[in-house]
Amino acid sequence: MHSPDVLLHLYEEKFAKNNFYANPTNLYKPVDHIMQMKGKKIRPLLVLMACDLFGGKAEEALNPAFSVEVFHNFSLVHDDIMDASDIRRGEPTVHKKFGTNAAILAGDAMLAYAYQYLTNVPDELLRPLLTAFNKTAIEIFEGQQMDVDFETRNDVALEEYLKMVEFKTSVLLACCVQLGAIVGKASIEDQLAIYDFGLNLGLSFQIKDDLLDAFGEAEKVGKRIGGDILQNKKTYLFISTTQLCSAAQQAELPRLIAETDEQKKIDGIKVLMEVTGAKAATEQKAEDLYQSALASLQKVNVPAERKAYLAAIAEKIKNRDY
Amino acid sequence: MHSPDVLLHLYEEKFAKNNFYANPTNLYKPVDHIMQMKGKKIRPLLVLMACDLFGGKAEEALNPAFSVEVFHNFSLVHDDIMDASDIRRGEPTVHKKFGTNAAILAGDAMLAYAYQYLTNVPDELLRPLLTAFNKTAIEIFEGQQMDVDFETRNDVALEEYLKMVEFKTSVLLACCVQLGAIVGKASIEDQLAIYDFGLNLGLSFQIKDDLLDAFGEAEKVGKRIGGDILQNKKTYLFISTTQLCSAAQQAELPRLIAETDEQKKIDGIKVLMEVTGAKAATEQKAEDLYQSALASLQKVNVPAERKAYLAAIAEKIKNRDY
Repeated sequence: MHSPDVLLHLYEEKFAKNNFYANPTNLYKPVDHIMQMKGKKIRPLLVLMACDLFGGKAEEALNPAFSVEVFHNFSLVHDDIMDASDIRRGEPTVHKKFGTNAAILAGDAMLAYAYQYLTNVPDELLRPLLTAFNKTAIEIFEGQQMDVDFETRNDVALEEYLKMVEFKTSVLLACCVQLGAIVGKASIEDQLAIYDFGLNLGLSFQIKDDLLDAFGEAEKVGKRIGGDILQNKKTYLFISTTQLCSAAQQAELPRLIAETDEQKKIDGIKVLMEVTGAKAATEQKAEDLYQSALASLQKVNVPAERKAYLAAIAEKIKNRDY
Repeated sequence: MHSPDVLLHLYEEKFAKNNFYANPTNLYKPVDHIMQMKGKKIRPLLVLMACDLFGGKAEEALNPAFSVEVFHNFSLVHDDIMDASDIRRGEPTVHKKFGTNAAILAGDAMLAYAYQYLTNVPDELLRPLLTAFNKTAIEIFEGQQMDVDFETRNDVALEEYLKMVEFKTSVLLACCVQLGAIVGKASIEDQLAIYDFGLNLGLSFQIKDDLLDAFGEAEKVGKRIGGDILQNKKTYLFISTTQLCSAAQQAELPRLIAETDEQKKIDGIKVLMEVTGAKAATEQKAEDLYQSALASLQKVNVPAERKAYLAAIAEKIKNRDY
């Protein structure tokens, strides 16, 4: 068994250098720009940890691990265009720095490279890895579209929101541990269990994110508190609030949403989130999903002590305030 | 052996219906929009014909054939965004009809679907098909970037132009026949020969295209004659012209390029293209490449009569005036 630090070191050793330094440089400079940004590398780490969980060789999981990191970064490049985001991790986004056309093309190339790295594995792993990855990629595009669709809808149900988060965010984390499990020669049963672990962890992660966006501390979270509220985003927290409002609160809500003083809007809606019990309900949902993740991890047929690292990561994600 | 018509019928039978009618509809409507446009289906046909050439079962090549068609259409969707093109095959382009964000996301999904269809083949074909396809996809993105880079350069050499065309256009045709050959269990030697056939055919095709853009008949070509000249595109024809100019013609060229009367510009440069011998040299290059394609086809180790359909397609491409 290897600690996350050891696994991450293996990964960094292989992929820290410029992997996309090639011609034409105008295609690969934008790719390098995003790939060299400091990130937590949580997705490749999950691939390696899941492989290690089942006693697989981490070295054999390195290419799939890099593949999901390239895929994740591809999706950030294209999402940033669609969201017109100028800054990511404190640096200009790819389309801001290199132009939209360069960002579209660089993203396309990254998607092809994600497949190329994924296929750089022994023959017997090729089909199961591809099947899992393909399904996930398509779900992520569907989730991204759901998210876009929700922007112009006012009747998004909690279940719909959860389905969107599942597709847009969680399936990639679930896919990461599944890919690692496949390399580690896990049984189908264990693959499903570890997949569910990743899925519930991802859902819990996103709902915690929604909470931090409204109730975190700006210095720790690293962005302005209340951004989702200002954008009228239909998060779990917000949808719960609208559902738990009394008749009087229900009447107050449209006025708050239309409030032009940004701080007043944030403060007013946050009060509603608390007094309606929506904040508490959302915290409970994040906790429930975390417990579901642990229960799924429990089901995996390996000795409990081997699961300690993954359980610790799940707990860290649950307790974070950033 | 099966005629192209029979093969195309097989293909249409399987894929004529809406293959992307699914939820969320805002993701798949743009995909259907481009996939339902009337096209010549030359790429899937080449996959099926190459498979048939080696005695393979066309049915086994259907998914790879559809894969390259989906990939080709994905590249059109993203290229149309980058080129800001409003019309394709007489219909609004995807980004014009559905918006840029929808077109980016639909294209991304199509690229993933191209891989999904490609992997829907027997196990022993999986790796060779993926290896060929991946290499090609990445080359195409590199070719697209070269094309963009050339727009702002005035010193593009003929060899650079040919390399760009090879990557941007020809490798996909070459990949098509290679994929078909792989499904048809061709030897590596035969795969290389048929790949070269496709590559030279693609190059010949593009150079013929450059000629038709300047010297074709508007009604047959289906667009305004002289478009490349107006855009100062560095085609084989144009680069040859600049190289073959006398000192006096060399001096005249900048004036013609700067000419604001569009028809005068087109007519003036066309005269130079003829009197310098650049037009004749370009026609000769197209012919040479066609002959190279035939020579590659010749090398394939199957009886000559089996090659008749592919040779006929090559001749048709060479002699077309549209």
